[in-house]
Amino acid sequence: MIIAMKPGADMDELHHFAKSLEKQGVKIHLSEGISQTVFGLVGDTSGIDEEGLLAHHLVDKVMRVQEPYKRANRLFHPHDTRLAVPGPDGAARYIGGGHLGIIAGPCSVETREQILGIAGAVKEAGAGFLRGGAFKPRTSPYSFQGLGCEGLDLLLDAKKETGLPIVTELMAIHQLEVFDGVDIIQVGARNMQNFTLLKELGHCRKPILLKRGLAATVTELLMAAEYIMAGGNEQIILCERGIRTFDNYTRNTLDLSAIPALKKQSHLPVIVDPSHATGLAWMVPAMAKAAIAAGADGLIIEVHNNPEAALCDGEQSITPAAFGSLMDILRKYAAVEGKAV
Amino acid sequence: MIIAMKPGADMDELHHFAKSLEKQGVKIHLSEGISQTVFGLVGDTSGIDEEGLLAHHLVDKVMRVQEPYKRANRLFHPHDTRLAVPGPDGAARYIGGGHLGIIAGPCSVETREQILGIAGAVKEAGAGFLRGGAFKPRTSPYSFQGLGCEGLDLLLDAKKETGLPIVTELMAIHQLEVFDGVDIIQVGARNMQNFTLLKELGHCRKPILLKRGLAATVTELLMAAEYIMAGGNEQIILCERGIRTFDNYTRNTLDLSAIPALKKQSHLPVIVDPSHATGLAWMVPAMAKAAIAAGADGLIIEVHNNPEAALCDGEQSITPAAFGSLMDILRKYAAVEGKAV
Amino acid sequence: MIIAMKPGADMDELHHFAKSLEKQGVKIHLSEGISQTVFGLVGDTSGIDEEGLLAHHLVDKVMRVQEPYKRANRLFHPHDTRLAVPGPDGAARYIGGGHLGIIAGPCSVETREQILGIAGAVKEAGAGFLRGGAFKPRTSPYSFQGLGCEGLDLLLDAKKETGLPIVTELMAIHQLEVFDGVDIIQVGARNMQNFTLLKELGHCRKPILLKRGLAATVTELLMAAEYIMAGGNEQIILCERGIRTFDNYTRNTLDLSAIPALKKQSHLPVIVDPSHATGLAWMVPAMAKAAIAAGADGLIIEVHNNPEAALCDGEQSITPAAFGSLMDILRKYAAVEGKAV
Amino acid sequence: MIIAMKPGADMDELHHFAKSLEKQGVKIHLSEGISQTVFGLVGDTSGIDEEGLLAHHLVDKVMRVQEPYKRANRLFHPHDTRLAVPGPDGAARYIGGGHLGIIAGPCSVETREQILGIAGAVKEAGAGFLRGGAFKPRTSPYSFQGLGCEGLDLLLDAKKETGLPIVTELMAIHQLEVFDGVDIIQVGARNMQNFTLLKELGHCRKPILLKRGLAATVTELLMAAEYIMAGGNEQIILCERGIRTFDNYTRNTLDLSAIPALKKQSHLPVIVDPSHATGLAWMVPAMAKAAIAAGADGLIIEVHNNPEAALCDGEQSITPAAFGSLMDILRKYAAVEGKAV
Repeated sequence: MIIAMKPGADMDELHHFAKSLEKQGVKIHLSEGISQTVFGLVGDTSGIDEEGLLAHHLVDKVMRVQEPYKRANRLFHPHDTRLAVPGPDGAARYIGGGHLGIIAGPCSVETREQILGIAGAVKEAGAGFLRGGAFKPRTSPYSFQGLGCEGLDLLLDAKKETGLPIVTELMAIHQLEVFDGVDIIQVGARNMQNFTLLKELGHCRKPILLKRGLAATVTELLMAAEYIMAGGNEQIILCERGIRTFDNYTRNTLDLSAIPALKKQSHLPVIVDPSHATGLAWMVPAMAKAAIAAGADGLIIEVHNNPEAALCDGEQSITPAAFGSLMDILRKYAAVEGKAV
Repeated sequence: MIIAMKPGADMDELHHFAKSLEKQGVKIHLSEGISQTVFGLVGDTSGIDEEGLLAHHLVDKVMRVQEPYKRANRLFHPHDTRLAVPGPDGAARYIGGGHLGIIAGPCSVETREQILGIAGAVKEAGAGFLRGGAFKPRTSPYSFQGLGCEGLDLLLDAKKETGLPIVTELMAIHQLEVFDGVDIIQVGARNMQNFTLLKELGHCRKPILLKRGLAATVTELLMAAEYIMAGGNEQIILCERGIRTFDNYTRNTLDLSAIPALKKQSHLPVIVDPSHATGLAWMVPAMAKAAIAAGADGLIIEVHNNPEAALCDGEQSITPAAFGSLMDILRKYAAVEGKAV
Repeated sequence: MIIAMKPGADMDELHHFAKSLEKQGVKIHLSEGISQTVFGLVGDTSGIDEEGLLAHHLVDKVMRVQEPYKRANRLFHPHDTRLAVPGPDGAARYIGGGHLGIIAGPCSVETREQILGIAGAVKEAGAGFLRGGAFKPRTSPYSFQGLGCEGLDLLLDAKKETGLPIVTELMAIHQLEVFDGVDIIQVGARNMQNFTLLKELGHCRKPILLKRGLAATVTELLMAAEYIMAGGNEQIILCERGIRTFDNYTRNTLDLSAIPALKKQSHLPVIVDPSHATGLAWMVPAMAKAAIAAGADGLIIEVHNNPEAALCDGEQSITPAAFGSLMDILRKYAAVEGKAV
Repeated sequence: MIIAMKPGADMDELHHFAKSLEKQGVKIHLSEGISQTVFGLVGDTSGIDEEGLLAHHLVDKVMRVQEPYKRANRLFHPHDTRLAVPGPDGAARYIGGGHLGIIAGPCSVETREQILGIAGAVKEAGAGFLRGGAFKPRTSPYSFQGLGCEGLDLLLDAKKETGLPIVTELMAIHQLEVFDGVDIIQVGARNMQNFTLLKELGHCRKPILLKRGLAATVTELLMAAEYIMAGGNEQIILCERGIRTFDNYTRNTLDLSAIPALKKQSHLPVIVDPSHATGLAWMVPAMAKAAIAAGADGLIIEVHNNPEAALCDGEQSITPAAFGSLMDILRKYAAVEGKAV
């Protein structure tokens, strides 16, 4: 971290300030320039509050050289993390490190027939994981809120029948009690900075699929991962799912440049949710292909056997048939990129 | 709600679709135009999912005429809500309905001396409520996370000594156990769509200060209020605290037009947080005045006796002296607007 | 266009209003609902001002069913437009309709050696067109503003030597006098709504590469194209080059979902500028691949022989060698997509 | 400007790089830290391209300490600029430096009766300047484009009759020929970075009302002013008129914090356009008051005698009667702020 002090600052005051900073565990390299003095901070600056520094009357500008995340940082972990998720058969399914993880399934679990039907279809088409919502975060309290525990039970049945590990969203920490059979726990975009929840998930031993918040920067997403990792759980999958911008043609604006950005900054696998990002089923194949081309380690795609009758997000769900065609072309893209799918 | 069906849609299919919609409790007024048929939905459409409709192959466009919130809606509650918050002396302090509620205090409770000193100072300057964070949502897991229960105890001491009702943030529902003495519970911007938390607060009987999310629309803020109100707790104070935009001169972009917007749509009181919105202490007075001029029912302002040494957000805290001067001018603005402060 | 009138509006007033609208050349289909009357407008509504309607005291909401653009609209021109740009040899280079147009070259023309060297290198790597700025729009009046006419002359030399058609930016209409030898005229993002310029270009008979404004919606980009097309020049190439959002990891946020969006709404070819969108040379290959995967009809890429010494935008320029490697992989992507490159 | 070099950079290379920078007219103060070397640049850095530096393989991060604008910078011109605009009677009307400039009138000049009627009404209510569009930038080529020269003539008549100086928008430099009688030339938001136009206006000797672009930062607005000022015309009025964000309740998001931001950075007067910012006539009074409270030096407000029949932007125009009431309350605000209106 480099701090430019105000021009004309008193040198005694500057030395006094430098000492107070050193009490926070860093060393200060003080450099007197012609017009202003510059502090170079050496050591672990992750606990030093940039904005707090700006409150000080001697400080002009602050520039962070080292990122504030550590465990998520590629600097300290140069190789890609490859997550291994064991299926009901004990064999691992991989995400990251050259392996594409394809997660597919309905927005919400609705009925036994629905989830078993879709699970069978996406497995056949080549999906590696089954998604399905049991507890649903909905903008309106009057909208369908998910089947809850009953939905979880149906997901477990589908897992048993197809052998696909399951991914579902956790909305509150007390729900962990019923998440025993869940293979990957999803933290939704709206909970990306629910820090209490993140801290608790640090003590959990399951992979966490962490979705980027609607207005979260790349750094904030990595800091959210860091919250979980600081607790000891390093199995994180980052998920780009669209950010909120002025543009309203699509539901959100899919930020595919976040893929190379996240992969440069971090060793964690990065997947993309083209369904929530666009909110438009017809756009999902184009954006799924683009995500793989941009370097994503996988996809999470909404598939519904009857999108028109879906209890939520039907307009962004593709049919099992469309998913099958998409998988065919994704395999070609994976081949070009030298990745396993 | 008005639904424009696709041009050339089959009339039998349209009638069938209309019937399926009527099962959701609305009446359909079907109007055959020259180029396309239009459905007018009459009745309570708050449970009908706009996006679900768009998934249907017959549907072209959807326009919501009635807002999806009910209890927060001014349509069904034309008069301004005036919240009465009893202080330790039993007498009520008001927010809304012509009363400005001025909430002031430090970002975080740090020490006994700090909170008692600031509480006394802001009371003398004319604040009606004391704010102070005990549980702090911080972007980094390595930053100061607040004093927790000890901080709450210090706040209660300050309340006892000054008679000011207290406002503090709740980050997780289990913290409610220790919130007995808290007068107004704050829900932070990052938890605005923590629906599990909102639902639980619906069963609580304390006023909730609900902060707008960084990327939340006016409608989404009102839907978050509706989540709480649907549970039976109608004591909500809405708080504009800046939204995230491309502009980075200020920490967030204070959206003062949200005040007249929220007040047109809803009867709930609306206050403004100029400290978090701008992140710049020197800008707080200008934006506090502007908020009152734009029709706000109050303010929540960070005040710290020694901003340079604050454990968080020092750069946006004003001193007690600056707060005193601000109150002097705010009283003039209140007089112009015919409001009590 | 569908207009929902205010509930309880007087029927005589409504009929009077309907008549005044019909004077603007549309037919009104008036439908009395239970709670409110709805007008369905039939005919050419492109000249009717949505926002003007909302000023009327009888009007509640307005929903546009038909897009306000006509010549750019795929509805009236279902097949993809394929632009043919003749080179100095008279043979056409294509963009759109299954042909990828790859435009490469430096941000600014700097010297004869520079532009000839880069032109030769990108041609050898497989580029179809040469780009280079002579008149440069710079944020600061104190930055290098381009070589002007001298830069144009050097571009023409490079065209002569390599046979590559050239693309360069026009900043003001009087520059047209010296654009005789230019093959594709670029309109920059900052001039996308310079309507005077657009109108004049409507009378020009050269292809226009129209870049999306930093804060322009898909509809606004198509309306800008419509301005040119309304004047008779239908040779437009649309270019997505990143939009401005809260995210600041990249210079702009590349909105690849604009590709399928634009191609659904319009028949015009759509290309992508990954260099300006990201501002980061190392990210260009990933986003170039993603653009092709998302359905783009081409790319415009900054290539510089010595990015470190470039007079502008060096940090986003790739070297000729990197461009060569990128072309190798792009050919594989083109093969998967069944496109000629 | 401070440049942090990459850790481990070769010292000879660093010295060589420092020398190459010094050729651009700055002095380098090189400071060897423990982990990385820092360059401090002293002198005029306004011509040094931050982004160009980042392309260099030795450079890690760059921090600009001095703003890139000079003539617009308050640092070199500490006192507020007060613009004096002479009316037809030769007496000056002031904007800035304690004087509120109130500009009112219709979006477009439509007829003689309209403009004379509105001009008389706003003068009587206390406006200091008359606005009215003759050349209109419209999103659609099929919308009303303004009366052009005929509109200018009508404006001049209104000026003659009322004595109000007039403000109107210039869309292209050749229109200057007919702008002789115009007192303040408006540059619209869409032309804020039409650099060719800005340069030409630098040679003009009339005050320029420069509107902030939809996606322009505070710095970019000041750089646009700098373009004009660099040519010798220092009579600039900056205008905040709303920025584009995700929020769509209002047409744009009025960024009132831009007022204190611009006034801290620059000595130029800052006015606000609440009409275009909100797009909602009923919201104009609240935001006009808030603008004055936030420190604006004036307002530009759309007033129309018959908003429902306005040829453009009727939904954001207030009636002369509403303008009169607003002026009454604005005078009270001006009194609180100690400003002349």
